[in-house]
Amino acid sequence: MPVQTESPAQSPPCQLSRRRLWSHGQPISFLMQQGVENPDVISLAAGLVDPSTFPASETLHAAEYLLADEARAREALQYGTTPGAAPFRRVFLEHLARMEGCTADELGVDVDRLVLTTGSQQFLSLVGEVLLDPGDICLVASPTYFVFLGLLAGLGARAIPVQTDDDGMCPDALEAELARLEQAGELGRVKLIYLVSYYENPSGVSLSHERRAEMVEIARRWSKRHRLLILEDAAYRELRYDGPELPSVWSCDERHDSVILAQTFSKSFSPGLRVGFGVVPKELVEPICDRKGNEDFGSANFNQNLIATVLRRGSYVPHVERLCVSYREKRDAMLAAADRYFADLPGVDWVRPHGGLYVWMTLPESVPTGFDSPLFRQATKVENVMYVPGEICHAGDPDDRPRNQMRLSFGVQDLAGIDEGMRRLANAVRAVAR
Amino acid sequence: MPVQTESPAQSPPCQLSRRRLWSHGQPISFLMQQGVENPDVISLAAGLVDPSTFPASETLHAAEYLLADEARAREALQYGTTPGAAPFRRVFLEHLARMEGCTADELGVDVDRLVLTTGSQQFLSLVGEVLLDPGDICLVASPTYFVFLGLLAGLGARAIPVQTDDDGMCPDALEAELARLEQAGELGRVKLIYLVSYYENPSGVSLSHERRAEMVEIARRWSKRHRLLILEDAAYRELRYDGPELPSVWSCDERHDSVILAQTFSKSFSPGLRVGFGVVPKELVEPICDRKGNEDFGSANFNQNLIATVLRRGSYVPHVERLCVSYREKRDAMLAAADRYFADLPGVDWVRPHGGLYVWMTLPESVPTGFDSPLFRQATKVENVMYVPGEICHAGDPDDRPRNQMRLSFGVQDLAGIDEGMRRLANAVRAVAR
Repeated sequence: MPVQTESPAQSPPCQLSRRRLWSHGQPISFLMQQGVENPDVISLAAGLVDPSTFPASETLHAAEYLLADEARAREALQYGTTPGAAPFRRVFLEHLARMEGCTADELGVDVDRLVLTTGSQQFLSLVGEVLLDPGDICLVASPTYFVFLGLLAGLGARAIPVQTDDDGMCPDALEAELARLEQAGELGRVKLIYLVSYYENPSGVSLSHERRAEMVEIARRWSKRHRLLILEDAAYRELRYDGPELPSVWSCDERHDSVILAQTFSKSFSPGLRVGFGVVPKELVEPICDRKGNEDFGSANFNQNLIATVLRRGSYVPHVERLCVSYREKRDAMLAAADRYFADLPGVDWVRPHGGLYVWMTLPESVPTGFDSPLFRQATKVENVMYVPGEICHAGDPDDRPRNQMRLSFGVQDLAGIDEGMRRLANAVRAVAR
Repeated sequence: MPVQTESPAQSPPCQLSRRRLWSHGQPISFLMQQGVENPDVISLAAGLVDPSTFPASETLHAAEYLLADEARAREALQYGTTPGAAPFRRVFLEHLARMEGCTADELGVDVDRLVLTTGSQQFLSLVGEVLLDPGDICLVASPTYFVFLGLLAGLGARAIPVQTDDDGMCPDALEAELARLEQAGELGRVKLIYLVSYYENPSGVSLSHERRAEMVEIARRWSKRHRLLILEDAAYRELRYDGPELPSVWSCDERHDSVILAQTFSKSFSPGLRVGFGVVPKELVEPICDRKGNEDFGSANFNQNLIATVLRRGSYVPHVERLCVSYREKRDAMLAAADRYFADLPGVDWVRPHGGLYVWMTLPESVPTGFDSPLFRQATKVENVMYVPGEICHAGDPDDRPRNQMRLSFGVQDLAGIDEGMRRLANAVRAVAR
């Protein structure tokens, strides 16, 4: 008989947090797993960036500049501060001003409003942390960025979809939803409106110029007992291939107290450096920095310094210009392939995006696209091509979500891969739709 | 009279999350603020690393190796995976094996158990996220790493101090505390024992060899309905200047299911790269990766690649050897200065650490050291020297915490700065203790 002081032969299970349960089973994990298990497929799923456009020499020159000089190296390899060193934030503020078409002084905010993060994903996560309690509500476009939906789920927050058309989230539908929530006694739980304002992931749609100011006005009007904030995710902003140059939603908020702006260098420069940043209303600076202090003290100072160096040396803007030339060609290739292979398929339609990395395709309602659908199996197992099922990009009641959509990325494949991937995908649709 | 549809002239306040309230007012923010406001002080407070020892040329060579070759550059500048690319994790596993004095195959875990993070701080934070609900309990040494106490507070978790002596946390006291908690019906809330096993920040004390195995045995024995886990923070492990080479607590857990190990390259290589990693029980891999997926998708792939390259090229070990020579000299300088300036002060005592970055000093009970104490004012405003007040390193009832201790870092000052800082600090003590 074992004596009391002996430990048991097998350990009892770990008891995990509620948060762990909420963040369980994200579709992104399944997608990445699919990618690993099916290395031979042509992936039109991955939101990766085209590696042939990576700024290797720009990064190398910046690294040499920082590390070959002793004083600069000491600074670059030391800890930064939690929101990022002020000189880099100044450079990033000037970068923002350039995008906004003004000088840094004309922006109406100073460097204290900027928080530099590990990609913009960490910034989105920090905003969620400091604002959302379990049960709180974030209004989202339909469809919207599915990783953000997972982030909300991980916080125990509720994502409520708002009707969205070719000009982005519909203001009338947003107001109707707010009125419904007020009626239901839930307005006190509504904290955020999430807007992917440029070439939305997945739909490729941008919020129209008129609606940008309208959104700010709605957020203000519905800020009754507490402030209703807009979280503007401008990740794809710089990947513009044609169409109008739109002002940010943030710039329509003249007081800069109602819109939180998220920006990243992952799409425009290099995702491997994981540098993003956010601009926040004054009251949120300290909460976000306190939370970030607990999470990591601050993102990699060296990488912020690298990007600031690239910006200062003037090699960033030409790089983005080259990038847009390359992506424009790839977008055109995907749209041409869609015309070529899908035009004869009845009930198939797609968005022609002015920027970003995605073509959003709608199939006939009789052709579901989900992970457990015949099409997904046919595509991944027979035709060796992968896409992102549209249903994971919709919030709200699963029974109400469209099931016949796909997100197709032209980011990572070359021109031939795009054409071949689209050909295979059309074959898969043809096979299951008959 | 304003019409209903106009927005108010001033925005109502933001309504923040409970978590935000819990993470408010961390002492680290106050300390960093003090540093900024008092640029002329000699800081014995900052836990920064000596910039004169930074591996500029090692990092430059690795950056050139990665970026001057097109194929390697494409890989380095792309997204990694959430836990880090498998080849880098393999290199880090071999690094761990070297520290453990065995081969990677003999470690008893494979790369799937490693998660690469933004410094080890992010790893500690992720462990807290997936394990701790508000009200859950983590047992900690007294004193312990104050930033971790802030992290626990930010989660709404409870830190309960356990008596600690020159050999680290006392096993008998730990068992007595567990028995007390069981008696109080709280054993179900006890999730973690946090151990800074090597040259603890702030006390400089290491957990003795015998106690390491004992801690694992206690955790197992008290794993009744759920597993009681040990979180071993081995941040200072490689900064050993003399004294015994101790096995990790993790290595005493032969099943590798009860100890979570946190490691970092911030102290041994460069904090500006923010590369850390953790080794976790099998059941925690997916929870931690899911959570990390929501937080940032993965830390900077480029930086992990840089460190892996430095490790592969064999320039890491010689760097750490040089580092230890330099820090040993600085530790000796601080201890010599303590002998020189404090020996004649009655009731002053300090730990002589075998490694790490800190000397822990105890003053007479009549000399409190807190932020609002006469000593802190005298030191920072008159003598221009700064330290970390010991009371922020203690958990539990504020009325029960020792108030007469200081953490003194020899990390960032040069030899002259250490001597002068200690001289000034002794003057400050003399001024307020008379």
